[in-house]
Amino acid sequence: MNAVDIINKTKRKIKLAEDEIKYLVNGYTSGEIPDYQMSAWLMAVCLNGLSEEETVSLTLAMRDSGDILDLSCIEKITVDKHSTGGVGDKTSMIIGPAAAACGVAVPKMSGRGLGHTGGTIDKLESIGGYRVDVEFDEFADIVNKTGFSIISQSGQLCPADKKIYALRNSTGTVDSIPLICASIMSKKLALNADCLLLDVKCGTGAFMKTPEDAKKLGELMEKVGIAAGKKCRAIVTDMNTPLGCCIGNSLEIKEAVELLQGKVKGRLYDICIELTANMLELAGKGTIDECTAMAVDAIASGKALDILKKTIELQGGNSSICDDVERLPRAKYTHVIYAPRDVEISAVDAEELGMASLILGAGRISKDEEIDYSAGIVLEFEIGDKISMDAPLMTLYSSCVSDFSEAAYRAYNALKFRTLTDGALT
Amino acid sequence: MNAVDIINKTKRKIKLAEDEIKYLVNGYTSGEIPDYQMSAWLMAVCLNGLSEEETVSLTLAMRDSGDILDLSCIEKITVDKHSTGGVGDKTSMIIGPAAAACGVAVPKMSGRGLGHTGGTIDKLESIGGYRVDVEFDEFADIVNKTGFSIISQSGQLCPADKKIYALRNSTGTVDSIPLICASIMSKKLALNADCLLLDVKCGTGAFMKTPEDAKKLGELMEKVGIAAGKKCRAIVTDMNTPLGCCIGNSLEIKEAVELLQGKVKGRLYDICIELTANMLELAGKGTIDECTAMAVDAIASGKALDILKKTIELQGGNSSICDDVERLPRAKYTHVIYAPRDVEISAVDAEELGMASLILGAGRISKDEEIDYSAGIVLEFEIGDKISMDAPLMTLYSSCVSDFSEAAYRAYNALKFRTLTDGALT
Repeated sequence: MNAVDIINKTKRKIKLAEDEIKYLVNGYTSGEIPDYQMSAWLMAVCLNGLSEEETVSLTLAMRDSGDILDLSCIEKITVDKHSTGGVGDKTSMIIGPAAAACGVAVPKMSGRGLGHTGGTIDKLESIGGYRVDVEFDEFADIVNKTGFSIISQSGQLCPADKKIYALRNSTGTVDSIPLICASIMSKKLALNADCLLLDVKCGTGAFMKTPEDAKKLGELMEKVGIAAGKKCRAIVTDMNTPLGCCIGNSLEIKEAVELLQGKVKGRLYDICIELTANMLELAGKGTIDECTAMAVDAIASGKALDILKKTIELQGGNSSICDDVERLPRAKYTHVIYAPRDVEISAVDAEELGMASLILGAGRISKDEEIDYSAGIVLEFEIGDKISMDAPLMTLYSSCVSDFSEAAYRAYNALKFRTLTDGALT
Repeated sequence: MNAVDIINKTKRKIKLAEDEIKYLVNGYTSGEIPDYQMSAWLMAVCLNGLSEEETVSLTLAMRDSGDILDLSCIEKITVDKHSTGGVGDKTSMIIGPAAAACGVAVPKMSGRGLGHTGGTIDKLESIGGYRVDVEFDEFADIVNKTGFSIISQSGQLCPADKKIYALRNSTGTVDSIPLICASIMSKKLALNADCLLLDVKCGTGAFMKTPEDAKKLGELMEKVGIAAGKKCRAIVTDMNTPLGCCIGNSLEIKEAVELLQGKVKGRLYDICIELTANMLELAGKGTIDECTAMAVDAIASGKALDILKKTIELQGGNSSICDDVERLPRAKYTHVIYAPRDVEISAVDAEELGMASLILGAGRISKDEEIDYSAGIVLEFEIGDKISMDAPLMTLYSSCVSDFSEAAYRAYNALKFRTLTDGALT
């Protein structure tokens, strides 16, 4: 077996055997197969695809490149959720506590943000003191105590994915459904929860730009999860507009807490209920209708907020933010964008808003960059709203940028609206 | 401009601009663009192709990565010939002197063999003393004196090709028509002769396995050559059977000399006349019929052999081999394969014969390996011949391998024949 033969097979659309894929992944992880051979193979995969069987083999080989967690010490049935990322997605901090309030265990590992998408770990770090790098035993202990914990991805899980992902980023081989599937699923299967809900975001703010691609990725991930012996379900959710009105780390924590306080309804709330209900049903807690009712009650009763508060406390964070969101980091500078005339908002380019937020300091372009937790954008409207001239459209926040011109330009241009004739506002 | 954007364009079949291709080639040659980005791009080219304009840009960027020879010191019109390689191809040593005998100058640079194909430079080195690494001034001087010289590719020509070729070899990105075209043509355009005849070999013994691919490659190379201001023509010649009956370095020199002595006719002779006539016509020496007559006379008169002899002498080689081929290196061991029954030879797998010859020591698998100049195979038949039981089919030669079993097995299995019924031989 050698790498050139394997590359040639994928190039010629000849299916690889399981042991060929293992050879490639293990050889690359150990450094015996060089970057330039792996990148040629990745490009062949981007252009020729992989079969379902090959994708399963790739995912399992990547999973097996590092540790696989043993969650048997967690007493309740474990349910993991994965979102394919997007702008303003703060669902993990909401549905984790909500599902835990209904009797399942939600042990989660998350990543940091890169480019226009945020990362749950960055958001949690905006809560002063929150330790994201808790050891496994303590992690399991917190989950047993509260039902919920989020820590950062351990370096011992899926080293193959880490190395392949970095290479894909610098070789134009990111947008391949089998590669995205293997990257996500290898990490999820290494975390090893009993049930796995996959939330595939679709739209301008997400990896998958079309419903067809999102459906394809979801189905593929389901098949891989089931092949690996998990209870697994994928659902597609819309990401053409940001989820909720806040983008940026502490702003999103604020919105999540306010939702758990019962103060936020609308699309974000509806999606959180849908995801929680699906997690519960997957874990065998009842029919989808029963699980929906349980999810609604978990938030309305304040139980979910209690769980979030207790988890933050156990992880060393300032849990008083759950009582008073004003204790979260606040930006030094703000800038309001006003409607230049009477308008009706017809669409929002979530990716562009993510870029504007990045410019304000909320994100990073390359790894290890420092970020401004207080930075971000708050939208003052929902899609379809009519806004009068000189009413606020958005507020921009930053502690590191005092010149808002570039970010404001991009944020404003992310809006699609139609001008209303005089007197058309009702 | 950055490499990832360029890779993504080719991946998405978006045409690259000339300056993007220059950026890529120059960046890779200088080491600023790493192997893993180049190999991803090469794979995208293999699978998505390049337009003619892009192939011209790539070829010229590769040509411009190193020196371009100034052949103005050569008095006569210069004609270069390139064959895409194959098993048993010794035409350069024949048609160079033959064309020179008809009044054109043939300054040639050649390469070494790799894998199952031989290289003209290795063949010439089997002539004791022949210096392949002559400096440019002496090279031009020899061409002015005899009309013909072959030296090895200078390291100053096309460093981009050298680096890209090595990478293609180890990343499964060899078999791409635009990449093959750019590799060949960049070197030929850097040599910079006035006229360029391209002999595209087609068949099992050659790079191009089908007539369609050979035609495509020939047409593309013609277009690139003409775009670069050269008189350029491509012809396709068959390589399903080896050219002539000898495979192996000194064995092929022997056959070339014997042909120039007027002792060899058949397919090899016919192809040499055709190639020589085309070179002469391209250089404006007359109609194709006139040029054919000139080529025939160049060999029949012994003028071509004289030129080869004089060139070998000027390059320090043992020119007496032109009078007596028995002075060439001779193998220590021989092995004859006999017909196991009465057979008719219907086909030969030239690539497999090349592999058998490699096993005998005539070739190398990796660069810088030593080779056995005396090793090789002599076929005792032509396609369509009927061979009686126990008559010789082939003779295998080697000085480094005394156990012929593996080579004999492969060589014998390279033959396709039908068994004749008793008494069917005529």
